[in-house]
Amino acid sequence: MTRIVDDETTAARAEARYALSGLEYMQRLMAGKLPPSGMAGLMNFRLVEVSEGRAVFAVKPDERHYNGLGIAHGGLAATLLDSALGCAINTMMPAGRIFTTLEMKLNYVRPMRRETGEVRCEASILHVGGRVATAEGRIVDAGGKLYAHGTATCMLFRTT
Amino acid sequence: MTRIVDDETTAARAEARYALSGLEYMQRLMAGKLPPSGMAGLMNFRLVEVSEGRAVFAVKPDERHYNGLGIAHGGLAATLLDSALGCAINTMMPAGRIFTTLEMKLNYVRPMRRETGEVRCEASILHVGGRVATAEGRIVDAGGKLYAHGTATCMLFRTT
Amino acid sequence: MTRIVDDETTAARAEARYALSGLEYMQRLMAGKLPPSGMAGLMNFRLVEVSEGRAVFAVKPDERHYNGLGIAHGGLAATLLDSALGCAINTMMPAGRIFTTLEMKLNYVRPMRRETGEVRCEASILHVGGRVATAEGRIVDAGGKLYAHGTATCMLFRTT
Amino acid sequence: MTRIVDDETTAARAEARYALSGLEYMQRLMAGKLPPSGMAGLMNFRLVEVSEGRAVFAVKPDERHYNGLGIAHGGLAATLLDSALGCAINTMMPAGRIFTTLEMKLNYVRPMRRETGEVRCEASILHVGGRVATAEGRIVDAGGKLYAHGTATCMLFRTT
Repeated sequence: MTRIVDDETTAARAEARYALSGLEYMQRLMAGKLPPSGMAGLMNFRLVEVSEGRAVFAVKPDERHYNGLGIAHGGLAATLLDSALGCAINTMMPAGRIFTTLEMKLNYVRPMRRETGEVRCEASILHVGGRVATAEGRIVDAGGKLYAHGTATCMLFRTT
Repeated sequence: MTRIVDDETTAARAEARYALSGLEYMQRLMAGKLPPSGMAGLMNFRLVEVSEGRAVFAVKPDERHYNGLGIAHGGLAATLLDSALGCAINTMMPAGRIFTTLEMKLNYVRPMRRETGEVRCEASILHVGGRVATAEGRIVDAGGKLYAHGTATCMLFRTT
Repeated sequence: MTRIVDDETTAARAEARYALSGLEYMQRLMAGKLPPSGMAGLMNFRLVEVSEGRAVFAVKPDERHYNGLGIAHGGLAATLLDSALGCAINTMMPAGRIFTTLEMKLNYVRPMRRETGEVRCEASILHVGGRVATAEGRIVDAGGKLYAHGTATCMLFRTT
Repeated sequence: MTRIVDDETTAARAEARYALSGLEYMQRLMAGKLPPSGMAGLMNFRLVEVSEGRAVFAVKPDERHYNGLGIAHGGLAATLLDSALGCAINTMMPAGRIFTTLEMKLNYVRPMRRETGEVRCEASILHVGGRVATAEGRIVDAGGKLYAHGTATCMLFRTT
């Protein structure tokens, strides 16, 4: 497999993140002006919506995401939720303010398969305080059927 | 990218899982007699230990696992924990008994990077009852430093 | 302290729960036709709303709920959420169908004090399947300010 | 019911907490030199062990802790775990350093009843960093049978 992300790209993206607000950064990512992260590429995620307090990622489950039982591995829902929950919180961060995810919790409601078609993970903020933020998210298919839901807790920092 | 897992392989592996006990199935996987699942291949996980009530997976974090800030995406720890927690519970299942993961919760303690080197996710069962099982796991590096920890709740089924 | 609940009451209430649907049971509780449970009495909770898929409990935090730092102990939010999340799921259970809570997760957003005044814990179902149900809830004050939020996973059973 | 804790006691206890290390404070509580908090009194908890990185609370479940089904309400395990997890982290705090619990997650493994007899909640730290600490705990009976387990995440502060 070729290196999906080289070191230069990683550094450039990290720098962009510190100079921009979280929302501007996410909007550039969505517009394709910044390359997707290694994990987003690996998983085949697409950022499809971003606004203040909200972010939506989409993915089509396929065999690359499968576990030993022929359904999507729980890591697919977990990685998708982690992406969307973090991005929803990121949209609330001004330039010079970053966060780290302290914990995540998710429920698996239904299995995802290739036949499920594209699913969307819709995340929105629950609370943004001075030092801590929380968000919730749901993974649904085109018909609105629920596949997983979860929450995350983030700690906020100033970089300057 | 080539299809990592074709449908025939998926079906064969799922069938093996129903005929074997969970522990036998995991031992075959570790011996390379069964192909790794799509997700394990995608993430570059290796199953390195399995015994009654315990499972250990290893991975070397690299750029393919990175998020936009130049560290491993939270989905790496989540997928690794989901694998190890599920396998620890799987080791307790006789043939004809399977489980589904209802929920997982994890804490991110430190960032993982390429420089971290190989990490191990050590999982062990907390409780195995007639209908529900729980397990806990920790991700540590070669020096025993803690990177993440988590728990999962599974529901148990008979296939026959 | 007098015995808040005697054995006869406990048995009568449990029996009522098996003969009625969950919603009918909760409506009788709210109407005062069934005595509150021991814990609800101890904590001074009031069931103030119940409908299909939704339940609301209220409490005025005071010194009996305090921890060593002069604010409400985390157990107040936890017990309130556990009550409301379970009752929201209970409203979906027909007669002869009961559930047990497998796990709960909650975030503490702000401290509650006597000065906070009455808070309400509003819970609603996220998913009700054949064997598993999940619910979410939030604790808010009269002005809608958020104090805690959480989710629970329940397993469903038939009693007959 | 008489007021379990008056305002003077609350203020005195909070002041003691800021002047002492967390471990000294817990040791005084256990020796009866500081009155128990309101919630500990309400729930009938006893602090029975405290050392660096570890705390144990005990309680005898009885009808005051019951829910509508004649078993201990989930709030009993939740409040007991919240107490023990917080105290385990408190034992690591020097004077002038306090913490707040951000979130807790617990699994209910078996119901607790009057017949269960005294249970102990044994909590120990998982990670204590500069700004965040995590702990895990288990509730077991005299024979070591597991009733519940959980984890908590705390944020650390300086008071000076």
